[in-house]
Amino acid sequence: MTSNVAVVGLGAMGLPMAARLAERFTVSGFDIAAERLALAAGHGVEPAPTAAAAVTGADAVLVAVRTGEQLHDLLFGEDGLASHLAPGAVVVLTSTVGTTGIDAIAAKLAEHGAHLVDAPLSGGPVRAGEGDLLIVVGAALEALAQAMPVLEQLSSTLSIVGDKPGDGQALKTVNQLLCGVHIAAAAEALALADALGLDRERTLEALTAGAANSFMLGNRGPRALQAHEEHGAEVLSRLDIFVKDLGIVGDAARAAHLAVPVAAAAEQLFLLGEAQGLGALDDSAVIRVVAPELRRTASRKEA
Amino acid sequence: MTSNVAVVGLGAMGLPMAARLAERFTVSGFDIAAERLALAAGHGVEPAPTAAAAVTGADAVLVAVRTGEQLHDLLFGEDGLASHLAPGAVVVLTSTVGTTGIDAIAAKLAEHGAHLVDAPLSGGPVRAGEGDLLIVVGAALEALAQAMPVLEQLSSTLSIVGDKPGDGQALKTVNQLLCGVHIAAAAEALALADALGLDRERTLEALTAGAANSFMLGNRGPRALQAHEEHGAEVLSRLDIFVKDLGIVGDAARAAHLAVPVAAAAEQLFLLGEAQGLGALDDSAVIRVVAPELRRTASRKEA
Repeated sequence: MTSNVAVVGLGAMGLPMAARLAERFTVSGFDIAAERLALAAGHGVEPAPTAAAAVTGADAVLVAVRTGEQLHDLLFGEDGLASHLAPGAVVVLTSTVGTTGIDAIAAKLAEHGAHLVDAPLSGGPVRAGEGDLLIVVGAALEALAQAMPVLEQLSSTLSIVGDKPGDGQALKTVNQLLCGVHIAAAAEALALADALGLDRERTLEALTAGAANSFMLGNRGPRALQAHEEHGAEVLSRLDIFVKDLGIVGDAARAAHLAVPVAAAAEQLFLLGEAQGLGALDDSAVIRVVAPELRRTASRKEA
Repeated sequence: MTSNVAVVGLGAMGLPMAARLAERFTVSGFDIAAERLALAAGHGVEPAPTAAAAVTGADAVLVAVRTGEQLHDLLFGEDGLASHLAPGAVVVLTSTVGTTGIDAIAAKLAEHGAHLVDAPLSGGPVRAGEGDLLIVVGAALEALAQAMPVLEQLSSTLSIVGDKPGDGQALKTVNQLLCGVHIAAAAEALALADALGLDRERTLEALTAGAANSFMLGNRGPRALQAHEEHGAEVLSRLDIFVKDLGIVGDAARAAHLAVPVAAAAEQLFLLGEAQGLGALDDSAVIRVVAPELRRTASRKEA
C-alpha cells in the first residue's frame, strides 16, 4: 500500500503535483525556496525542513529535476537521499532528462533497496493540478505496481512503454523530436503561406483538414499567428523547453550514431529563438525566427 | 452547363480521372502513348488523335503535367492548345507545379478567351477513380463555377483557398512542406526509437495517442516499419514525388527570401533516398536513409 508520498522540488510542476497528491495521500514536501514550501503548506502538503526529512518514511518519492546529473547528486551526493529512503521505496522521476546515466542510477538505488520508476510527463502546471497529465513509464513490474496509485492520481493517460528505467526517457525523447519538429514545421509553413499571400486563417483551416495535419499544427498554429501581436500568445509551454528537449534528442541520436537532420534543423531554430530573446515566450513564437514580421496577406490578391 | 470534358494526359492519375468523369460527362482523351489511349477507350473515354482534337468543343480541359513549363508549352507552344479551345473554356490544372509562371499563363489564356482554374489535387490513382480526391482551388468566381461540376465529380474534399490562379499552387506548396517534413520526422523518430531499444509498435501506438501525432505518423509510420522487409510497404505515393514537391517548396521559399531550414533538411533526406535508388518505393522508405537497417529492438532490454 502506498500512503506516504514525498515530493522533492515544489516548482512550477512540483507544487501542483504535490497539491493534487495531497487529496489522496499524506504528502511531505521540500523545496530550497522557503516561499514555495509555504505555498505548498497552504495546499495540504506537510513542509519538511530538509529533503532527507521529507523522504523519510515515504513509500514513493517524486522528484522533478532538470538533468540526470542533478538527480544523481540529489540521491547519491553529500547527505544524498538514497540513504534516507525507506526500504522498498520507489523514486519516481517525472522530468525529461534523457536516457544517459539512468541505468546506473537505477542500479545504485537498487543497492539501497529502492527502485527507480522512470515516468517523464507532459501537460503543464494546470493539468498537473487536475490529475490530467500524460505520463510514459519505464519500470520493473513490482516498482510499477507500487508507483501506480501515485501515477494514476496525476495522469489521465498512462503509457507503459517498457519494463526498465530509461524506457520512459527514451520514449519521451522520441516524442519530443516529433513535437519540436512539428512546431518548427508549422512555423515555416505559416510563414511561407504568408509570404505567398495566402489568407492565413483559411490556410490553417485547409491544412488541418488533410494529410498535412499534426496535433501541433492544430494546437500551436493559431497561437503562431498571434506571435507577432503586441502581447503574443499565452505561454502554455516555453520556447526554451525545446532548446533543452531537442538538445536531449541530439545527444541521444549522436550517442547512437544516428543522423537526424530534420530534428537538428528544428533545434537550430529554437536556439536562434532563445538567442533572440524569445526563450520565455510560448514555443509557437519560433515563427518569429523565420518571419520577424508577417507580410501583408493582401499583397498577392492585390497584385 | 459543362457537358463536354477533355483530359490531356492519361497517366497514373489522368486515366482514372478520365474514367470517373466519363460516368457523368462526354469525355474525350489524349495521350502520346497509344496503349494509354486504348486503355482509356475501355473506360468510356473517346480517344482523340491529337491533343488539339481532344480539346476542340470541350467546356473544361483537365491537364496533368509535371511542370509549369510543360503547361506553358502545351498551351502556347507549337500548335498549342490555346488556339483550339472553345470560347469561354476552362483549363483545369490538376498538378502540383508551384506558383512560378502561373499568373502569366492565366493572363495569356485570358487573351484566348479561356480561363485557368488552379486545382492541384492529392489522393492517388485509386481515390481518383472513386471521386475521393482532395482538391485545393484558386480561381476567379466565374471560372470556378464552370469547373465546379468537374471538380465535384473528382473530389470528396474541395477547399476554395483563394480567388486567383496560383492560390491553389501556393496552398499545395505549403501543404507539401508539412507532409514532407512530417514523413521525414516520422522516419527519424522511429529510427531513434529503434536505436534506443524501444519496441517499435508500442512506441508508434504511444506517439500517435498524444501531442506527437500527425496524420503522416499514423499513415506512414506503420509502413516505415515495413520498409526494411524484403518487399517493403505497398507504394501508395512514390518517394521521388517529395523530391519534386520539396523542390517546389525550396524554390518558393527562396524566391520569397524565406529560410525554411527544417523543410530543407527533409528535402535532403528525400534526395539522398532517391540517390540510393529508393525513388520508386513508397515515400515512407525514407527511413532507410537514416537507418539502412534496424537494430535489434531487444538489445536495450537484454542489456
